[in-house]
Parts: sequence; structure tokens; C-alpha cells
Amino acid sequence: MPIITLTTDFGEKDHFAGTVKGSIYSELSDVRIVDVSHSISPFNIIEAAYTIQNAYSSFPEGTIHIIGIDSELSPENKHIAVKLDGHYFICANNGIMSMICQDIAPEKIVEINIHDKIQTSFPVLDVFVKVACHIARGGTLEVIGKVINNIKPIKYLVPFVNDEKTQIIGTVIHIDNYGNVITNIKRKFFEGVQKTRNYEIAARNYKFKKVHDRYGDIINFDIPEDKRNDEGKALVVFNASDYLEIAVYKSNCSTVGSASTLMGLKAMDTVTVSFDKV
Amino acid sequence: MPIITLTTDFGEKDHFAGTVKGSIYSELSDVRIVDVSHSISPFNIIEAAYTIQNAYSSFPEGTIHIIGIDSELSPENKHIAVKLDGHYFICANNGIMSMICQDIAPEKIVEINIHDKIQTSFPVLDVFVKVACHIARGGTLEVIGKVINNIKPIKYLVPFVNDEKTQIIGTVIHIDNYGNVITNIKRKFFEGVQKTRNYEIAARNYKFKKVHDRYGDIINFDIPEDKRNDEGKALVVFNASDYLEIAVYKSNCSTVGSASTLMGLKAMDTVTVSFDKV
Amino acid sequence: MPIITLTTDFGEKDHFAGTVKGSIYSELSDVRIVDVSHSISPFNIIEAAYTIQNAYSSFPEGTIHIIGIDSELSPENKHIAVKLDGHYFICANNGIMSMICQDIAPEKIVEINIHDKIQTSFPVLDVFVKVACHIARGGTLEVIGKVINNIKPIKYLVPFVNDEKTQIIGTVIHIDNYGNVITNIKRKFFEGVQKTRNYEIAARNYKFKKVHDRYGDIINFDIPEDKRNDEGKALVVFNASDYLEIAVYKSNCSTVGSASTLMGLKAMDTVTVSFDKV
Repeated sequence: MPIITLTTDFGEKDHFAGTVKGSIYSELSDVRIVDVSHSISPFNIIEAAYTIQNAYSSFPEGTIHIIGIDSELSPENKHIAVKLDGHYFICANNGIMSMICQDIAPEKIVEINIHDKIQTSFPVLDVFVKVACHIARGGTLEVIGKVINNIKPIKYLVPFVNDEKTQIIGTVIHIDNYGNVITNIKRKFFEGVQKTRNYEIAARNYKFKKVHDRYGDIINFDIPEDKRNDEGKALVVFNASDYLEIAVYKSNCSTVGSASTLMGLKAMDTVTVSFDKV
Repeated sequence: MPIITLTTDFGEKDHFAGTVKGSIYSELSDVRIVDVSHSISPFNIIEAAYTIQNAYSSFPEGTIHIIGIDSELSPENKHIAVKLDGHYFICANNGIMSMICQDIAPEKIVEINIHDKIQTSFPVLDVFVKVACHIARGGTLEVIGKVINNIKPIKYLVPFVNDEKTQIIGTVIHIDNYGNVITNIKRKFFEGVQKTRNYEIAARNYKFKKVHDRYGDIINFDIPEDKRNDEGKALVVFNASDYLEIAVYKSNCSTVGSASTLMGLKAMDTVTVSFDKV
Repeated sequence: MPIITLTTDFGEKDHFAGTVKGSIYSELSDVRIVDVSHSISPFNIIEAAYTIQNAYSSFPEGTIHIIGIDSELSPENKHIAVKLDGHYFICANNGIMSMICQDIAPEKIVEINIHDKIQTSFPVLDVFVKVACHIARGGTLEVIGKVINNIKPIKYLVPFVNDEKTQIIGTVIHIDNYGNVITNIKRKFFEGVQKTRNYEIAARNYKFKKVHDRYGDIINFDIPEDKRNDEGKALVVFNASDYLEIAVYKSNCSTVGSASTLMGLKAMDTVTVSFDKV
């Protein structure tokens, strides 16, 4: 059974996602539709890119991913379908695919042209669903568009490194549900610059000397729980997606606080890593 | 495989929707359950009516729609099952169905009476699921209720038109996820009054002379993106559901603002259309 | 087809739930995944316990429930799989299961040990999915862990009763989507202490003399709707899950108010029941 995933900024309240699902089931009786997220911040390309990058590869090969963010057709914003890593992606050519494509080369990209005459303010319903169902029925990309070779890039995808390679200047690209602050600095990138040097990570006036692998790494479990003072302890981890993340142990934005609320960190803020001289 | 959709004000947090799904799967092993929305504002009939109207018809004929808003049984609030446009709807007779029924006549309406002795504060679980599974198994409406001919109306369903037909006075019925402001003025209704006249649309002290079809229509794509000043540009569109909507290009309530936040428009506010003399 | 449910504090925005679903579909092509909730308050054990307790039993026997709250492995927080009431539960041994287990004795509990070498900050993905798929394929609990006999308790599970049995001191464990205030006082527990006595329920300076079965019980439907003043009327009910709940008729936290917003009641607040002398 083909799988179609949905990643959108439709929100949880409106009928948009329901309408899209109904439309898919009307075209294909035997299909599985899976929500990745409908709560991407409206028009937030980098958040959408981060989300689909971290979700897609857990699905079986052949899965079709509809990404409905900033997808109204315009002279600047064409629709594309991409085959990459055995998966299919249908979205606007607005930079969303550039995060995945920097790691893995696309097998094929087409600019969708079956719909040049459709004037629609709901392209996910009127165009992306049609393309997804075409692919789900075994159709090829060439039938629905013309092959292109490049996709549109986005800013802040790769952190800045100075010429002396003593500093990485990263950017906060996402605040997650726990208020954890995720930067665009990936583990591989970090380690490639670091070699074996010690370092200091700075975000506003907070400093860290180590990157952990698990949130509990900063807790001393030899001390009984009621004698420790765990709440609000900040740390830096490479998260499960291997991005450098500033976190607070057992955080909750609306009660004990989180990295975002306690340190005042938000999307597009700068996080720097300064490496010691050898 | 029968499809049952869910449109409720249960919210995303509580167990209510999960419990309802479990109960359906316990009765029917081969069924598809699709969430339309669980984030309708609590007890907001008109928002629920707008949502289900815009979602239902994308589903295949025969789909069963459970609408769980303000559904506690009372002398004023009976439970009904409706067959309309090839679809089934199960809800309280509280006005939710009147928006759909003004466009399409119901084929059959029954007031549910299989449960007169069930005292429950969770009628979606204890009554609507039973009725939905009965229909999904091919059961008829007559078995679960007595046929009635009318449903309860709601206020603000149809905009007001003055006797001279020079003005439509509409009402804001919904604010969507992008902060777009949706009125009860439908395209067909608008055009029926307009004929060929010019007009001015007014909401608070904002005025508009044109209704567009797409959000990007007000952008001049001949100017490069970084030289334009697109943010915060307001416009009026007939949205994908053909309702007159006041929108802001690429809006986001929590960052750049939206029609709702920037213009201070909210549900139940008035939007007027004044037509020129011919 | 096996059913796997998900109850987590992942939130609606992030890729976490989508990634988990993709991973399950990659292991099992023929499985049904059902969301119970992804909006449990982060690290809120008692809210998670309340949620899964009220959802699980509506599902068919044999259903596998993944509960992803506070699940990072530590010396204090082991992973367990539990068979109880014909259902399977996979979670951390952090108290989540104690609410269900106080009513129904587990058939079997194992402490999961297949993963002692997996260092992960995303145990739901890296451990719980593996265990769930093992069970879904018919595997036994003994293969993935060692049998244990006790689970970790939580505080505030059972209300306090004084020695004279004249007073129950309960605790607010959950605020639901309608702002209704749910205590840890269950109907059976209440009636066991009450016998036939009259009582007064107090929360802050609000007092109630009766527990109702439905929200509409306090409305006089003999008076026409527009002549009544229903809004904001508070009452106490045993809710659909048989917990004592302080509610407001047709409440909405962001418009007319709710029990939580109007009375200023929040999680962990005290609610007392004082019984008359006989």
C-alpha cells in the first residue's frame, strides 16, 4: 500500500488537512496517509526543511511526501517533484528541499507543468494531491513536469566558519516542543572543524564546554532525586537528528521553563563555537 | 472500506478522540478513521459548520461524518443523523447542519431515538459511534431514529442585504490558521447582488475595491523580491471555499502579523460591501 | 491487523511523532497506528497516566500502547513492558502505569534489557518501536526483558481521607480542553467514604452540595434559552471517566471562561469533600 505523508502549515484547527485527505481517498482507495506535522509556523521554510529532513528517512522507500508550505504558484515559486534517496517529495521550489539535498543528491527533479492553467489558492489540494496520486499509481515524474537540475537554496542552511577555522557561527533554526534550541550546526560539520581541539559554545551570555549525547548526562544519579537540584540545568547535546542543540533537563515552557524561555533564545539567534589554539 | 471522519472540539490534548477511535475499531475491524479537526473552538457551532462544509465533499460518497460539538442531549438539543449529497452526518440538531443544508437539500433526516435511556456526558462515544458503526455496516437511518423534516437554523448564516440592494452586511464567521478573516459572504451571493457594479468593501476603517482569486495577485513579481515590500499587504479574496476573506500576504499571527492581528478583526465583526449606483 | 497507539509529549509541531510512525511502517507493513495524544504537558506523568487510563480500554484486546513521556533511560528510569487487561503497554517505569495498575493487576511486567548498549536521546524511536513491533509480530515479553514484580508509584494518585472519615482531600490532576478541573477523586472511592451522608465540596472559596452526571443537569430547560442566564454556571460532575470534576456549563477558556479560568483552579490545587455527621 503506498504511503503519502503530509507536512504543512495548515494548523490543527482548519479543514485544510481533512479536505486534502478526503481528496486523496477519493482518488485512491488503498493508500495510507500519515501526518508528519500540520503545525509548521506559517511560511517558515527552514522549519519545514528541518522537519521533513528528520522524518522522511524513517518511512519505507517509495513513500511520497507532500510538503505544503508557501506553495502558491508564482513566477518566483514553481512547483517541483523530487526523487531522492528512494523517496518522492512534492513541494514548492522555495528552498524547502535544499536541506535534504545538501546531504544527498536528488535522483531526479521535475518542475510540475500539468497545471499551468489552474488558478488556485489551494495548490496542495488542486495540484500536489494530483501529483502524489499519479506517483502512487506508479506514474513517472517526466509525465507531470520537465526535468530541471537545480533547486532554490535557502539562507542559514550552513553555519559560517572563519578563515582561521577557529570559530563556527551558527544560527538557531528551530525551537522544539520542549523549548530546546536547535542550531544549524551538524555533528559532522562540527567535528570536521574541531579535529581534537577543546572549545567553548556561547549563546547570548551562556557558555558551555562540552556537547553531550543524552539529556541526563549532566545529572548525578548517585545523589537521591529529592536531594539533587535538577530543574533548569542547561546543557548542549547533539540531538537525535545530530544537530547541536541547547537544552534544559526536563524542560517545560509553561512551568519550569526551557532553554528558549530561560535563556531568551529564539529562531535566527546566533550561537558561536570558539575552538582553542592547538 | 467505510470511512468515518471526526470533527470535534475535543482539543489535541485529552484522551477523548483516542477513546472514540478505539471504540470504533473495537466495533469494526475494517474501517478508516480520518480526523478533520479536533480543534474547533469549544461550543462554536458556526465554526464547526464552516469546517465540515468545506471538508465533507472531498471524501468519497458514503463517508460517515461524526460532528462532536455541543452534543450533550437535552430537551433543546436532540441528536440527528442526516443523509445529504451521498454522505452521512451524525451530530446534535444545534444548527451545525444548516450551513450545508442551505445549499443542498437533505435526502433524509432522522432524530436518533435508540438511546433515550442512555444518560451520558460523552454522547459522541456512547451514541454517535454506535450510529456511525450501524451505518458503516449498511444499516438504514430509519432503524435508529424517526424521520423529521426540518433542522435547527443558526444565526449569521446568510449576510443581510438592504432593500435597495446597495449594501451587503456580512459577519466574520471564522479566523483561520493564517489569521485570515473569513466572512459569511459567498461568491455566488456576492455576484448575485453585485451584477456588474463596482463596489467598496469595508472592515473597520480598512477599504478594498477588488476581490482577488489568489493571495499573490497583489504582488508585482517584476520587481525583485528584496526590493519589494510585500509583508503586511492586505487584500480581499474569494478563498478556496468561495467565501469572501480578508487576508494578508504571507501572514503569520505570531511574527509579521495577519489580517486578524493587524486590523483587529475578530469573529462576529461586521464586514460591509457597498455597491455603486449604476 | 495489530493496533499500536501513541501517547506522548512530543507536541503537534515537531517531526517526532511522524518519525516514529515511519519507523513502525518500515518494520510492519500491515499495522494500524492511532494517536491518542501528542500534547501531554512535557514530563507530566500524572496527566499521561490519566490520559492512557481513559483511552486504552476502548481499544480491542491485544492493542499495544506506546507511552512516550519522560522516557530517557537512566539508573532511576528503566524501560518496561506490561501486559494488563489483555493490553500491552511500553513506557518508562516512572509512575505512568501506577494509575491503571491500582485498579487492575498486571498479568506480567518486564524490565526491557535488549538495548542496554543503545545510547539514545530518542528512546521511543530506538527502543519502544522495536519492542512494539516485536509484540505485534507475536513475540513474548520474556524475550525482551526480565520479569519484575513491582512498578514505580506516583504521588497524588489516591486522595487523602482523615481517620474519622469525615473528609476527603483530593488533588487537581488535570485541566481538560474545556477548562474543566479534574480531581483524583473517583466515584467509587467517593461513594465508599460517603455512604449515605450529605456533603459539601470546596475548591478555593467555591462550594457545591451535589455531584451531577451530566453538564446540562443544572439548566432549567423549561425557561426559554434566551431568558436563561446559562453562561458561567458552575457545577460538579462525575465525568465520563468517573472522576470528580468541577465544570462550567458550555465553557470556553478563551471566550466565556471555564472552571479553571473563572475560579482560578490549576493542577495540584486541593479540592475537599466534607461529609455531614450522621
